[in-house]
Amino acid sequence: MAKKPLPRVLAFDIFGTVVDWHGSIAREVEALGLPVDGGEFANAWRARYQPSMEKVRSGELPWTRIDDLHRQNLDEVLETYGKISLDTAARDELNMAWYRLTPWPDSVEGLTELKKLASICTLSNGNLSLLSDMAKAAGLPWDLILSAEVFKHYKPEPETYLGVCEVFAIKPDQMMMVAAHKSDLRAAAACGCQTAFIARPDEFGAGESIDTSAEPEFTWNATDLPDLARQMSA
Amino acid sequence: MAKKPLPRVLAFDIFGTVVDWHGSIAREVEALGLPVDGGEFANAWRARYQPSMEKVRSGELPWTRIDDLHRQNLDEVLETYGKISLDTAARDELNMAWYRLTPWPDSVEGLTELKKLASICTLSNGNLSLLSDMAKAAGLPWDLILSAEVFKHYKPEPETYLGVCEVFAIKPDQMMMVAAHKSDLRAAAACGCQTAFIARPDEFGAGESIDTSAEPEFTWNATDLPDLARQMSA
Repeated sequence: MAKKPLPRVLAFDIFGTVVDWHGSIAREVEALGLPVDGGEFANAWRARYQPSMEKVRSGELPWTRIDDLHRQNLDEVLETYGKISLDTAARDELNMAWYRLTPWPDSVEGLTELKKLASICTLSNGNLSLLSDMAKAAGLPWDLILSAEVFKHYKPEPETYLGVCEVFAIKPDQMMMVAAHKSDLRAAAACGCQTAFIARPDEFGAGESIDTSAEPEFTWNATDLPDLARQMSA
Repeated sequence: MAKKPLPRVLAFDIFGTVVDWHGSIAREVEALGLPVDGGEFANAWRARYQPSMEKVRSGELPWTRIDDLHRQNLDEVLETYGKISLDTAARDELNMAWYRLTPWPDSVEGLTELKKLASICTLSNGNLSLLSDMAKAAGLPWDLILSAEVFKHYKPEPETYLGVCEVFAIKPDQMMMVAAHKSDLRAAAACGCQTAFIARPDEFGAGESIDTSAEPEFTWNATDLPDLARQMSA
């Protein structure tokens, strides 16, 4: 099957696609010595991510940044554990763990290659300062950092994907969404964008079963970011 | 006099402060073989920059990106020259010269040093795609690219300076505006931000007389970006 023309802009999902939120949060929680399993805690915190954004999408909450949603969700998760004592300053500091998420081992190499083929930008629900600090610490070579914060809409709302196209003054099929989450890609495809699925089998921790099967509906299916760069260069 | 605490974020004006719009535009115009003086043409094009943004600030025009203002201004400048023949495609291409502006010789070195002291971001009236392409071509190592386009207000409106503070969740005096233009710095200072003046005597071409005198009202006065880094590190 003939592939579509190469896109001018690649927009990347971040949490899970480029960085390992599960492993990073688990390590920070365990380093604090909390009496919990770090990996379970990470998944419990992350499980509140979509429901909290849904309150913004539905209009129940006004525009609220991920920093503030994460912080509120942290209080709620800690409450479910019952006996954990962690003061406000320590909670604020733990919340900053999202600024320090570490990339998957292939991410910097893959982005460096993909940057030769197109403009590479973030399209994350994470806020701008989080994405900027993360890129600086991890050496992620973005051409541009974009965020739901710029568009005041959370993915998968169409204003985000179409917002990227507007910023670069391109048609939707000149933009490609790159993500480890099929729902994100399907929302981008519904806007007319190209799609690249990246398999990240360990997103929720080693041994957690998640759907990483390739799908013909996506423009590309890749095992990691360098694999996407190789396929797109072939 | 005791200096203020080092800011957490440095926000940079771009046209004239970090890149040499005059020399870059003059070279592109002359390379086209137009029967005009490249430097004069550059200054005539640039002279329409503030008046065109003023139409947006005043509400006479809805939000309009610099790309589109530059393009309209280009038609107007060409008209004043009378006999120049340049078709639409060539005009569109010349308009992209703003994406290709080259940095002052000290800019990359200076930004690399300043990036060790604080987060460095753009705060330009140029649009995001322009700033992204320029950074990629010139190797400008921004931690974050911000623009009037994000805030839908043009400098010197306070929403721009305060918008940077909001993005980074900092107080105004934790942000410092860095610019070669005193009016930009005075508007930032009125918002409570720190200020750094960079002398760029050749902004409008060698031999054009402009005011590059240091002013005690600014937090810092520097001869170029490495000089600012040295002073801030001392």
